[in-house]
Amino acid sequence: MYIPVILGTARQGRQSEKAAQFMLQKAQEAGLESEIIDVRDYRLEATDNTEISQPAQRLAEKARHADGFIIVSPEYNHGYPGELKMLLDMLFSQYAHKPVGICGVSSGAWGGTRMVEQLRQVCLAFHMIPTGEAVHFPRVQELFDEAGLLKGRSQHGQAKRLLEELIWYARTLKAAREIPG
Amino acid sequence: MYIPVILGTARQGRQSEKAAQFMLQKAQEAGLESEIIDVRDYRLEATDNTEISQPAQRLAEKARHADGFIIVSPEYNHGYPGELKMLLDMLFSQYAHKPVGICGVSSGAWGGTRMVEQLRQVCLAFHMIPTGEAVHFPRVQELFDEAGLLKGRSQHGQAKRLLEELIWYARTLKAAREIPG
Amino acid sequence: MYIPVILGTARQGRQSEKAAQFMLQKAQEAGLESEIIDVRDYRLEATDNTEISQPAQRLAEKARHADGFIIVSPEYNHGYPGELKMLLDMLFSQYAHKPVGICGVSSGAWGGTRMVEQLRQVCLAFHMIPTGEAVHFPRVQELFDEAGLLKGRSQHGQAKRLLEELIWYARTLKAAREIPG
Amino acid sequence: MYIPVILGTARQGRQSEKAAQFMLQKAQEAGLESEIIDVRDYRLEATDNTEISQPAQRLAEKARHADGFIIVSPEYNHGYPGELKMLLDMLFSQYAHKPVGICGVSSGAWGGTRMVEQLRQVCLAFHMIPTGEAVHFPRVQELFDEAGLLKGRSQHGQAKRLLEELIWYARTLKAAREIPG
Repeated sequence: MYIPVILGTARQGRQSEKAAQFMLQKAQEAGLESEIIDVRDYRLEATDNTEISQPAQRLAEKARHADGFIIVSPEYNHGYPGELKMLLDMLFSQYAHKPVGICGVSSGAWGGTRMVEQLRQVCLAFHMIPTGEAVHFPRVQELFDEAGLLKGRSQHGQAKRLLEELIWYARTLKAAREIPG
Repeated sequence: MYIPVILGTARQGRQSEKAAQFMLQKAQEAGLESEIIDVRDYRLEATDNTEISQPAQRLAEKARHADGFIIVSPEYNHGYPGELKMLLDMLFSQYAHKPVGICGVSSGAWGGTRMVEQLRQVCLAFHMIPTGEAVHFPRVQELFDEAGLLKGRSQHGQAKRLLEELIWYARTLKAAREIPG
Repeated sequence: MYIPVILGTARQGRQSEKAAQFMLQKAQEAGLESEIIDVRDYRLEATDNTEISQPAQRLAEKARHADGFIIVSPEYNHGYPGELKMLLDMLFSQYAHKPVGICGVSSGAWGGTRMVEQLRQVCLAFHMIPTGEAVHFPRVQELFDEAGLLKGRSQHGQAKRLLEELIWYARTLKAAREIPG
Repeated sequence: MYIPVILGTARQGRQSEKAAQFMLQKAQEAGLESEIIDVRDYRLEATDNTEISQPAQRLAEKARHADGFIIVSPEYNHGYPGELKMLLDMLFSQYAHKPVGICGVSSGAWGGTRMVEQLRQVCLAFHMIPTGEAVHFPRVQELFDEAGLLKGRSQHGQAKRLLEELIWYARTLKAAREIPG
């Protein structure tokens, strides 16, 4: 199964890239085909949902084949990054009835919980299935060592639970989407 | 399949009861076994999640057998009614991986949209699957005739789409929950 | 100025009471007249906003004189307790243009952040002014010693900032509400 | 007093521009100095909150002098447009303790209510004061005539109430911000 990791910020010096790499590795260890979909590679000047732009066509190709999604994103002022929203808003039908696991990153103590809640509402509008499980990376600037290895412990268990739920949904719904009628 | 309709307000003169009856009828017409779970019948004085109270035991019995849920609730001050939240908070594990369709009721023009958004976040915390579709009953006091029949038109299509999505999820996930491993 | 502390849960064994006592003491040290408004003392069987019930009349009397509010509440399944919502929904006009500082309590790591976000939306529907500052009590069961004294450190600074903002708003808006025209 | 109207979408064929022009006219009729701040004029490739970019400097200049804000924005998939979030995230301190009135635009029936709720949470993170009142432009493609004149009626009353609340806050808080200590 193919479940890519969407990295939700294009900001200079972004810390979330380390968290995305961590989730990518966990996804691959769980047997998934995965890769990072970096918002930096899907830039638009304005929201466009016509699916005719070149970035939208590239994204649609990936989303169509995806059996689910992982999103790793920082929280900016209790919400999601604008560039992540512009990326997600490019498409619609390709998301439907696919599970999504959302991972929050923050420089403060709360691990992006508020961004996760807002993004869940957006994902439900796309008819996606947000997992009940989530992974949180609070105080991200202290959470990885110089080699980019996670120093925190709780994220390992959180990632395991998120991936189990995500894979269960992905497998179940993939089969159901393929059954006619 | 058994998908009950939870009526989310116990308020005197509640208008949402008509909307709940409408959804019950639509559910039964779609071939579902259903009934109304009335918050008036599951009252607690305070939030209790120990599942030892008599209302919690009765609710757990129903929730355990449910293949999904429909919730019909008014919006009070942009949120959900307290009595609905106390009912939902009685249980936890019985909800997991079951779909829920949320129907919003309002005396104003916006059909309970804001309550639906808040309640979706709560349902995700229970590991439920809120459907992307929703049914909205704006200006509810003008929406039904004296016999309780719906005068509005758009709710028929909304209910059809919600039930199709709900039943697809319920069937798919029921099968998957029953498969060992 | 009179700024009471609303304690938002009536649950058996509630831990939030310690957090409410902490905030009460901080409010009094800041020179405020305060007291705890305990949801246990304002119980209704169902949402009622007619303001004719005996609890609503007692609450209205206090709310009318209040220059602002502090709410201390646990997060239950990413939302607010039902009994807190029923208390708040009793009134409407008495809240308008008064500031409210919301303090979140949780047994887990995230300090009730998600409850705070939902409750802010409700308070805005009442035309209240939620402060930008908040106080969070994560892992509350480990946060106070046997005598009920706070062992955590960050809550002192958070409470100071919340009270400064709350008092600034309360003073400013009290004066403006009293000026005719 | 200077209260600009932020137009929150840069999308081709955006309908919200008509709603923003309507709010601009209402603001000027109410005696305010105003203008439209168009997200198209403040584009960044990625979220940046260093305030050193040229767009951020221009925006900061306006925001510093503003006594409040009006935001007119469509709802995209239950959330706010990415370009609006990137604009808002450029700044922080310039927003504090200033009121903001949020106006929702939608092609469907619900008038952007869900976007308003999410954006209110972001504005509170900036320590702004979202007004309790809001203006909603549902089915916007049918709501204005060919000359761009509003055909709807309820928006006039909504705009009047929003502006009254906004101006009351702006005047009150401007005075308070200028008083030392």
